[in-house]
Amino acid sequence: MTNGATALLETLRNAGVDTCFINPGTSEMHFVSALDDSDMRCVLALFEGVATGAADGYARMAQKPAATLLHLGCGLGNGVANLHNARKARVPMVNIVGDHATYHTKFDAQLQSDIETVARNVSTWVRTTKSVHNLAKDTAEAVAVAIGPQEQIATLILPADVSWGEGAVPVSPQPRTAPPQADSNVVEEIARVLRSGEKTAILLGRRVLLEQGLVAAARIAEKTGASVLCEVFPTRLERGAGLPAVERLAYFAELASVQLAGYKHLVLIDAKAPVSFFAYPGKKSYLVPDGCSVHTLVTPEQDAIGSIEQLVRAVGADRVKPKLQASSRPELPTGKLTGPKVCQAVGALLPANAIISDEAQTSGVKLGAFTAGAPRHDVLTLTGGAIGQGLPVALGAAVAEPNRPVLALVGDGSAMYTVQALWTIVREQLNVTTVILNNRAYSILNIELERVGAEEPGPKARAQFDLNTPPLDFVKLADGMGMSARRASTAEEFNAALEQAFSTPGPHLIDAIVPSEFDGLKLRALPMGLEVLQRMPSPLAKSIKKKLGL
Amino acid sequence: MTNGATALLETLRNAGVDTCFINPGTSEMHFVSALDDSDMRCVLALFEGVATGAADGYARMAQKPAATLLHLGCGLGNGVANLHNARKARVPMVNIVGDHATYHTKFDAQLQSDIETVARNVSTWVRTTKSVHNLAKDTAEAVAVAIGPQEQIATLILPADVSWGEGAVPVSPQPRTAPPQADSNVVEEIARVLRSGEKTAILLGRRVLLEQGLVAAARIAEKTGASVLCEVFPTRLERGAGLPAVERLAYFAELASVQLAGYKHLVLIDAKAPVSFFAYPGKKSYLVPDGCSVHTLVTPEQDAIGSIEQLVRAVGADRVKPKLQASSRPELPTGKLTGPKVCQAVGALLPANAIISDEAQTSGVKLGAFTAGAPRHDVLTLTGGAIGQGLPVALGAAVAEPNRPVLALVGDGSAMYTVQALWTIVREQLNVTTVILNNRAYSILNIELERVGAEEPGPKARAQFDLNTPPLDFVKLADGMGMSARRASTAEEFNAALEQAFSTPGPHLIDAIVPSEFDGLKLRALPMGLEVLQRMPSPLAKSIKKKLGL
Repeated sequence: MTNGATALLETLRNAGVDTCFINPGTSEMHFVSALDDSDMRCVLALFEGVATGAADGYARMAQKPAATLLHLGCGLGNGVANLHNARKARVPMVNIVGDHATYHTKFDAQLQSDIETVARNVSTWVRTTKSVHNLAKDTAEAVAVAIGPQEQIATLILPADVSWGEGAVPVSPQPRTAPPQADSNVVEEIARVLRSGEKTAILLGRRVLLEQGLVAAARIAEKTGASVLCEVFPTRLERGAGLPAVERLAYFAELASVQLAGYKHLVLIDAKAPVSFFAYPGKKSYLVPDGCSVHTLVTPEQDAIGSIEQLVRAVGADRVKPKLQASSRPELPTGKLTGPKVCQAVGALLPANAIISDEAQTSGVKLGAFTAGAPRHDVLTLTGGAIGQGLPVALGAAVAEPNRPVLALVGDGSAMYTVQALWTIVREQLNVTTVILNNRAYSILNIELERVGAEEPGPKARAQFDLNTPPLDFVKLADGMGMSARRASTAEEFNAALEQAFSTPGPHLIDAIVPSEFDGLKLRALPMGLEVLQRMPSPLAKSIKKKLGL
Repeated sequence: MTNGATALLETLRNAGVDTCFINPGTSEMHFVSALDDSDMRCVLALFEGVATGAADGYARMAQKPAATLLHLGCGLGNGVANLHNARKARVPMVNIVGDHATYHTKFDAQLQSDIETVARNVSTWVRTTKSVHNLAKDTAEAVAVAIGPQEQIATLILPADVSWGEGAVPVSPQPRTAPPQADSNVVEEIARVLRSGEKTAILLGRRVLLEQGLVAAARIAEKTGASVLCEVFPTRLERGAGLPAVERLAYFAELASVQLAGYKHLVLIDAKAPVSFFAYPGKKSYLVPDGCSVHTLVTPEQDAIGSIEQLVRAVGADRVKPKLQASSRPELPTGKLTGPKVCQAVGALLPANAIISDEAQTSGVKLGAFTAGAPRHDVLTLTGGAIGQGLPVALGAAVAEPNRPVLALVGDGSAMYTVQALWTIVREQLNVTTVILNNRAYSILNIELERVGAEEPGPKARAQFDLNTPPLDFVKLADGMGMSARRASTAEEFNAALEQAFSTPGPHLIDAIVPSEFDGLKLRALPMGLEVLQRMPSPLAKSIKKKLGL
């Protein structure tokens, strides 16, 4: 017999949830009060989007959910953008959202709002627990949904009187059941396609982007001649020397179309058929080429790893040696700093076993190329497109993996959405190096403005992408939150700062002053390189080629 | 004949909406592109909560809506907390939320989400315009809802292909109809109550807290002996020397109950019956005393000002001279700086015609008392309880009233939710002085923890309210966004900094280092003073009195 909050905490701990990212208010005071009797690790955030993004980064690395504690509908609202990113990535999470006492809601007090609709927007499972006697059971169910084979977000809405009510009994989790394998007919059919000799690409997503899945795909590729692609925004991608390399689809649909051109078959393994990030006038949204057949190995609730291993055996590739990425590092860059040079320095200096949170946007287009042969590392990306994820995800990843170096590469515009994350990184003394790619612009929008067909944007339109009036000084911003920080305007300064950050445990920030990649049109630096650009059929390519004088 | 975005902008302008707070993305590029052909003022925010809070502050002062431009469901989500605050205050606003092209949504691209449910959470009127031919008409309807007598939030969801589609024709607004008056029977009945001699309080809210309504209420009070109270969190309250003073209800229900005790009648004029902000174990949520009758003068759609004037005539008070607040200023404070001393200095130095955005939380408890006799000014408060409103509201108020000095009084915890507002204040060179009441704690939660009944909170619980590890340096944070800033730890330093800020147009920030008001229990500084505390019947009062040695 205990109060609701205590039983909730104990039930979470019984189910293996040992970390909670929180930003509490009055309605969550009993939860907070119960913390001293629990070994739940609590990480305080100054803004809810930091808490939800951190829970996302944590789960990507820990491979189990964290909890969040949020204050009513508005606290949940502040966390929605990063919950959206986690939802799109199918990252498990358990949100505890405090609510007014059940009898208080009818008075429509200041903070009263409809929590459930906001919760549903980002959660597969939503429940308002109305009685203290159901609380532990509901909590266990929330965790079960989160850690189930589909990996989803569960949101438990916790009225204050349920939290403070007496009579709750903590429960233990139900044993987990193994997820089903892909249907053997499906495996056989896909194996037949792969053996057919017709031009086939395998598109990997989500759970098959860690070593085991990558090795399986590489074996299939080696045996059958299929190409292996990776979804545009992987939840977590293991890469570097000693692992099979995969070609990531480009963000720009014009480039992704070139990558996908000519295939007769596309095999999806825990990935969706590729579509354009946005729609553009006169351009296709669905990027699978005409006449290309799409084959889906697994549904979300099936065991992706077990099923790709089945496919390996079905094509007779289980003894095939996969092609692995050789170790190689670029030279250290020199001269005036640019986004690509930041990526080059990262490739040159990245420590072993690093985790990269990549929200570098336009400045990061060369990251994949320059780090391909770096020591093995993980890359976490902007899965749902809602910017402001990079810093919180780095924070959460560092909480999950305290012994691995974390590198956050974040554009200036993106960083400002959830800049409060720096404070928590300092508070927890996390081993995170933050690089702000500070081009003083929403640089991507200058490109997008052209892509949507605006011919000659005027000064008022351009001003909406300008972050130089006033310029943001991230050294001072970091310092204001207690983080040691340096500025780099040359590659030499950046190399030295990065080396120092990697060799000194704890939080660091480098304000990397770089030009906007769109200035003077450096689109040739896009991952696929100039060759792809040359083959691009789109009006954008024409305009780019014209401007490049090709 | 023109594209959707252009017609939308022209329709907004036809309806008098001339300011838009924006944070756009790719799906809004045609809107952005159309800006150069419009005289719409566009104010860029680095985070959507800044845009929505600024639109709120703007409308409170301009008495007409601003527009916002937000990027899909996640952009709207980031703006939800401050939209909640505006909704609770019934502040008019027109949100334009970009969406994917209508034909693109089925592909469930990365940023695809259910925008309408989030919009409905904070908007009375929501429409997704599916055809360019309906866009101007829908826009005009959105503005009509916003500026209608109920003053509400309208959200127009704008698919990208509707924005870029051709064939739209801007429309002009329908003429506005005058809102109806209160029913004459209701006016007569309330007049009878007021003349009855029974102890009666008039609780004023929203639209009757500007001069005309205050004078009317003061006349009634003078004539009938009724007391005049003001809602806890007024949307906009005119006060200071030469205006009738009103007693604001306390945030703490324990104190508000004392204020309301003994009344036989409570007359609500554009206000709701008072309820506790949160529920607390064993305490009442509904604060109207037992046996007190509640009388409601107007419904939200009725003309509050016209109706209170009717009531003035009905009680024969139309020639009564209202009691007005005399001019008086406190001395300048001296010694170690505290929250109350900040309020005292504000009272001493506040320039004429100022606008105060008050989110000072526990540090601001003496603000009302110290500024009561200051030159006439407006106070804008945290209407919906979702913190992070103070800075954006100040920004929006300054855009609406460029010739009035704006003072933002914001707690450190609150400031960090939407700290990006400082950048826009600098960018627009607004006449805003920001005072951060930096007590390095979520101080209110220390009090709330006690109020909910947690007897002896442990160190882990207390740590969740501690913002001192690491301390936030707002001078550096402001400087990082280009804002001139000073720190003050003594009253003398604060006086000098405030004087300098008020005498020099443009943005300023003062990082006021103050102790947490809860340390050593300074609750005696609450607005009602020690006398009220002495009369408090609650366990809190007992505990406070004990600690105070009373």
